[in-house]
Amino acid sequence: MTTGRAARAPMRFWFEFASTYSYVGALRVESVAAAHGVPFEWKPFLLGPIFQRQGWTDSPFNLYPARGRYMWRDIERLCGKLGLPFRWPSAFPRHTVLAARVACAAAGEPWLGDYVRAVFRANFAEDRDISSAGVIGDVLAGLGRDARTMLERATAQENKDRLRRETETAWERGIFGAPTAEVDGELFWGGDRLEDALAWWKGERWSTR
Amino acid sequence: MTTGRAARAPMRFWFEFASTYSYVGALRVESVAAAHGVPFEWKPFLLGPIFQRQGWTDSPFNLYPARGRYMWRDIERLCGKLGLPFRWPSAFPRHTVLAARVACAAAGEPWLGDYVRAVFRANFAEDRDISSAGVIGDVLAGLGRDARTMLERATAQENKDRLRRETETAWERGIFGAPTAEVDGELFWGGDRLEDALAWWKGERWSTR
Repeated sequence: MTTGRAARAPMRFWFEFASTYSYVGALRVESVAAAHGVPFEWKPFLLGPIFQRQGWTDSPFNLYPARGRYMWRDIERLCGKLGLPFRWPSAFPRHTVLAARVACAAAGEPWLGDYVRAVFRANFAEDRDISSAGVIGDVLAGLGRDARTMLERATAQENKDRLRRETETAWERGIFGAPTAEVDGELFWGGDRLEDALAWWKGERWSTR
Repeated sequence: MTTGRAARAPMRFWFEFASTYSYVGALRVESVAAAHGVPFEWKPFLLGPIFQRQGWTDSPFNLYPARGRYMWRDIERLCGKLGLPFRWPSAFPRHTVLAARVACAAAGEPWLGDYVRAVFRANFAEDRDISSAGVIGDVLAGLGRDARTMLERATAQENKDRLRRETETAWERGIFGAPTAEVDGELFWGGDRLEDALAWWKGERWSTR
């Protein structure tokens, strides 16, 4: 079968479950993209290895306290503005490798969006320890999934390697923070640039060269 | 004389002449604030001493190349979107202590906004060396000011101390980057948050606490 035009790559939404701004972006990306008629793809990855390559062994929000204080206040305001729940997490950043492996293993599943949002809410609205298999299992069960089967798929070597490759791909494409929306090789860093990414996908172009 | 209400502090626009995002913000702040009916104040300061306190001896855009590559591309896009000229500067960041001292000395002058915009254009649209007294003098002369008198005022000890105090104040208020809009102790970092700062000044409040 041939079609008149090549398939268009969706906007890619790169996110990290430990990231506060990814929380704000992830909770609205699906509805905003739908409102613009733009297909998008969830792209879970790990910021830790990317931070390490830049010499950081912790979140920059912890390493640079002024930046951190601003971020927490900003998140309170953003959540208030967007009507999102927020509770200061008792641990930050949380280890997200298991949560991200599950998201990776669930690529293409119709419940992936619900899973992503539920994990983010657990971290930033419910202060639950998303690094634990118990909490991730609870989230999966709450979505009607077989938690044990899913956790097995997530921790299979093939899927672990897949998440590692995704993180590598993110770095190679120039991604250094989250969330980042990617459209045709252009990066839009930060949840507040989502509308720019969607406009770019729809063909708007602005550049001085 | 008594009035029915206390004077309201204007929105403060903290900026650094070496900062690309300050350029984008500075060129639009006056018209955007006017459109919202919000008074604002130019607050020049130096990012260098603030970066040093965070352990950086250079711009983070140079220290973290992935972040830097993104910023330059983002600036090209933002300038294209906003209709601002942009030319890659042959030196970055430029030393801005003299330019900032002049802005400090010109506080309250009706030509301050024109001076700020002209210096930013010299740096980011004309690739001129704004660290030089010759270039700053040219800018002042172009605005019909007596360059020599103004440079003398700018480099008087009292004015040097003033800029130092302003930078100290910025740090004490929690400012770590530029531009930052300050309203009633709330900080809004980044030119793309200007509209949020203006809304806050006008009484909008969104926060989860």
